[in-house]
Amino acid sequence: MKKKNKKVNAAILIIGNEILSGRTQDKNVSFLSHWLNEKCGISVLEVRIVPDLQKIIIKNILDLSKRFNYVFTTGGIGPTHDDITAESISKAFNKKYEFHKEAFKILKNYYGKSKFNDGRKKMAKMPRGSKLIYNPSSAAPGFITKNVLSLPGVPSILNSMIENCKQYLMSGSKIYSKTLNLYTVESNISKELANLQTKYKKFIDIGSYPFFRLGKIGVSIVSRSTSKKELKILNKDLIKLVKVKKIKVLKL
Amino acid sequence: MKKKNKKVNAAILIIGNEILSGRTQDKNVSFLSHWLNEKCGISVLEVRIVPDLQKIIIKNILDLSKRFNYVFTTGGIGPTHDDITAESISKAFNKKYEFHKEAFKILKNYYGKSKFNDGRKKMAKMPRGSKLIYNPSSAAPGFITKNVLSLPGVPSILNSMIENCKQYLMSGSKIYSKTLNLYTVESNISKELANLQTKYKKFIDIGSYPFFRLGKIGVSIVSRSTSKKELKILNKDLIKLVKVKKIKVLKL
Repeated sequence: MKKKNKKVNAAILIIGNEILSGRTQDKNVSFLSHWLNEKCGISVLEVRIVPDLQKIIIKNILDLSKRFNYVFTTGGIGPTHDDITAESISKAFNKKYEFHKEAFKILKNYYGKSKFNDGRKKMAKMPRGSKLIYNPSSAAPGFITKNVLSLPGVPSILNSMIENCKQYLMSGSKIYSKTLNLYTVESNISKELANLQTKYKKFIDIGSYPFFRLGKIGVSIVSRSTSKKELKILNKDLIKLVKVKKIKVLKL
Repeated sequence: MKKKNKKVNAAILIIGNEILSGRTQDKNVSFLSHWLNEKCGISVLEVRIVPDLQKIIIKNILDLSKRFNYVFTTGGIGPTHDDITAESISKAFNKKYEFHKEAFKILKNYYGKSKFNDGRKKMAKMPRGSKLIYNPSSAAPGFITKNVLSLPGVPSILNSMIENCKQYLMSGSKIYSKTLNLYTVESNISKELANLQTKYKKFIDIGSYPFFRLGKIGVSIVSRSTSKKELKILNKDLIKLVKVKKIKVLKL
């Protein structure tokens, strides 16, 4: 993984009617975002969820791949008729949609010659020139085409492949975050938080999120920055605020 | 709720750094999509997740509100500095961002005069001319501006408000769905499914989703259509396929 001391970003494109219809709860956004943030210093700046329709996938691939360093797609790389991610990416980038020799070999070995039917062969087809993202749990590889990394939709399989994406990514500056859980309500500290956000706006993003715990209401203050030093200074200001307002801090 | 015997669609815009950073698992997409599908005959055709940045929110509101019958936003309508949904929608539609008289009254009654501070007052500010979506669990109302319905990000509060959206929505043709759970693998039936999808493409969307249950692998075949009759005819074809292939059906 190459290091780069500046901001690196990504978008996620979730492909699948089952997510849009509400049938399936997406779990890949939080997993991917968390992994990219923590392990690679890459910020996810946009997510889109779109149906299994070629025109729409092509449009979104082109748009997102231009605007972000990386695009991660999930879903649509299986053996059935509604799995059209690889073909759509081929069309988006004007690349031939064809069998990838190594992917074909991997799948043939995995299933054995007699069980390597047309549906399974389809999983070896991808845009010409793609590189493989190996899949330790069910063989069918993901692939990277230009700056687009395509992964499966099943969370357990995606999770097992994620470390194999690293070799293709530049890492950005590490993003640090600090959370302070307070037994108060947002409106009690909203003015002071706004002032602190203005004071530190060059370095830090401050977010405020209500929580409910054992019947009590609280607020999590989450600060994120590429500068550990600035976070420490902000934290002192927050502790001062907590003391002045006599707010109880929840230690987890 | 007005009825309309044609397709009605919607997009969802999730606003919040906490979802993009992976800190918080979104639960609103599946809830909203499911409710819109089942209760209103409205199909969600696109979802976007974007950060708390005014320019980006404005761009997405304008884009989505042009392309879909309705846009549902979640998040960013609380009392703190990072809650900028109402102001952003005002700017998007060139409407004054001001106190809504009724919302102000509701919040003042709820908190009592002495505890009605600036942060809480902020929750009564919205684009001029908005109509309220009442909130039975924590008072602060959502609002509808043009075809954009704005709801809070906390799932339990959003869920409690959802029925109050109905009065503002046209309902579309009901979308029926049928699921057949089969103990087989996708590639065993991918060719036949593709043929059935071609045969019924005018009326039905067929999706195929692998599942894992008690150590066994299976496939859920989900068919969706506005025609109950067509779904029944397709189902006969599926049952034929299952018999020919000697596949065990899982009854849930």
